Amino acid sequence: MKIALDAMGGDKAPLVNIIGAKDALALYPKIEKIFLVGDEETLKAECAKHQFKDTRVEIIHAPDVVEMHESGAKTLRSKKKSSIAVATELVKQGEADAVVSAGNTGAAVATATLKLRTLKGVERAGIASPMPNEHGVCNLLDAGANPEATAKHLVAYAFMGAIYSKHVMGVKSPVVGLMCNGEENEKGNSLTKETFALLKELEASGKCPFTFKGNVEGHDLFETKLDVALCDGFTGNIILKSCEATAKAMSKWLKLEFKRNPFRVLGAAMSRGVFKAVKQRSSYESYGGSPLLGVNGVCIIAHGGSSALAMQNAIRVAMETVEQSVNPHIEEALAALSE
Amino acid sequence: MKIALDAMGGDKAPLVNIIGAKDALALYPKIEKIFLVGDEETLKAECAKHQFKDTRVEIIHAPDVVEMHESGAKTLRSKKKSSIAVATELVKQGEADAVVSAGNTGAAVATATLKLRTLKGVERAGIASPMPNEHGVCNLLDAGANPEATAKHLVAYAFMGAIYSKHVMGVKSPVVGLMCNGEENEKGNSLTKETFALLKELEASGKCPFTFKGNVEGHDLFETKLDVALCDGFTGNIILKSCEATAKAMSKWLKLEFKRNPFRVLGAAMSRGVFKAVKQRSSYESYGGSPLLGVNGVCIIAHGGSSALAMQNAIRVAMETVEQSVNPHIEEALAALSE
Repeated sequence: MKIALDAMGGDKAPLVNIIGAKDALALYPKIEKIFLVGDEETLKAECAKHQFKDTRVEIIHAPDVVEMHESGAKTLRSKKKSSIAVATELVKQGEADAVVSAGNTGAAVATATLKLRTLKGVERAGIASPMPNEHGVCNLLDAGANPEATAKHLVAYAFMGAIYSKHVMGVKSPVVGLMCNGEENEKGNSLTKETFALLKELEASGKCPFTFKGNVEGHDLFETKLDVALCDGFTGNIILKSCEATAKAMSKWLKLEFKRNPFRVLGAAMSRGVFKAVKQRSSYESYGGSPLLGVNGVCIIAHGGSSALAMQNAIRVAMETVEQSVNPHIEEALAALSE
Repeated sequence: MKIALDAMGGDKAPLVNIIGAKDALALYPKIEKIFLVGDEETLKAECAKHQFKDTRVEIIHAPDVVEMHESGAKTLRSKKKSSIAVATELVKQGEADAVVSAGNTGAAVATATLKLRTLKGVERAGIASPMPNEHGVCNLLDAGANPEATAKHLVAYAFMGAIYSKHVMGVKSPVVGLMCNGEENEKGNSLTKETFALLKELEASGKCPFTFKGNVEGHDLFETKLDVALCDGFTGNIILKSCEATAKAMSKWLKLEFKRNPFRVLGAAMSRGVFKAVKQRSSYESYGGSPLLGVNGVCIIAHGGSSALAMQNAIRVAMETVEQSVNPHIEEALAALSE
């Protein structure tokens, strides 16, 4: 197994990318090689600084860097030798099995779609972002690749998400819900109403490799047995960031309150493990990466603010996704759809 | 000041509605009358049970009840004597200054729009839902009245939200942001891109009674000085419920962790005030009500799960909104827009 890592992508690159790669190599013997893709001089110096010497590491030079605020699509032409472009090219050429990037999401999506192309039956790729759920993990799909999705795109996401849950996450009977402004059947906007009707029809004809739960709401993300929460990329990205922001605000307010008097400071000290455990449960660090489903190859998108642990876990997700060869299963499921 | 309370609306009606009304009358001497609207026998019995006798209370009989799962629009015809319809009619007839409901939101919006009509220059009403923000309160607008909003609707919401912040919440220079899947100017879907362009143009021509912050994201809801977070009702409702669900999940996980060993149980006991303070800061109970902006009258929508405290605060919000006569200010601001 060979992984191409965009070593320049992310808010804390290349530091956390390199530490994450080092830790992943120590933990996962199945990884034969990690390509560190980025500015050669920078990466050599950073590796030396952290005593990262491993025969399984190869630095691949990529002189251009895509900044986080740049338009992803525009950089396809202007920065052909960017770390994300060169890393994705390694997958295209069959030299790597997967690409991992914590850089500009728009650039990663556009590059993967252009270089790897989409799978048969897929018009647009979607990001499946794992969220902590009482019954396992709920994949929010699409979390931001495709802000102008159609009902047909959402139906393909339902199939891809269910197959991913089944084959990579080991869920026997995946459940898919449609994110909506109410759980009643008649709720929604024109996009979700059309998607709802299509999925009900497909389910009735026995074509769905999942149970369709109908419309779902915020609380279902955490409390209901739900493997895929379906939405367009605009809505999904907003949900993801709003949940993350709420958790952060809650933590901040708790910390402020705990400092108000000595009793509380002591109480907090006695309960220190509590916050660590909740952070571990709720943080994206523990999940590490979101697969870009629908491209002909494995592309894992990591959070822009990724830590070394998040990078290590993103590499693990890449490894698992390659191992379970999810793409042939997706094509098979989508072929049944068009019969 | 006279308030018409939908006494049958909400998950815990009529109990919390009646306790909320009792507490509001005790706290706010400006309220001359509260009409308790609903099934007369039920309300009489409930008032007797809670020793709620007050010359300022009048029970108005309304035999029909709109259930939470019903389609709001449909009940307009099928349940003409519902508590929400009769309560809104009191405002229409000038007998009450405001209507407050924790019942079916769709029914409240449809009834208020039909009976009270919209203000001059307003096509669709929107719900301004207050969220806790480090710099004050951020009004999420629209939080669910209008799931198929146009750019023109969103522009009107920006004006209405800014005027509400200014006149009811006392914000001198309101800031409006557009909820988006990224803060960069080019991000968004077709709706937000069109809205962005319209607001930039209006701001450049000096017609905005607010500062337009451009695109904003989840973290801005809590961390940035932001008085109005603009979105369509589909997105807004999902944001609101996702944030609420995250806060609930975090609390649940914290509670579970705090029970794991005796030290933590003791630590939690020493820090009890912490959680109460954070709950008070983050809960909708403390805000209590969301004004339906754009209708020709005052209509306050309370959370379906409202407690007595939430009902009391919803009545307070109704009182404040009437006092500041926000509607003439909205019409004035929107008139400037069409010049």
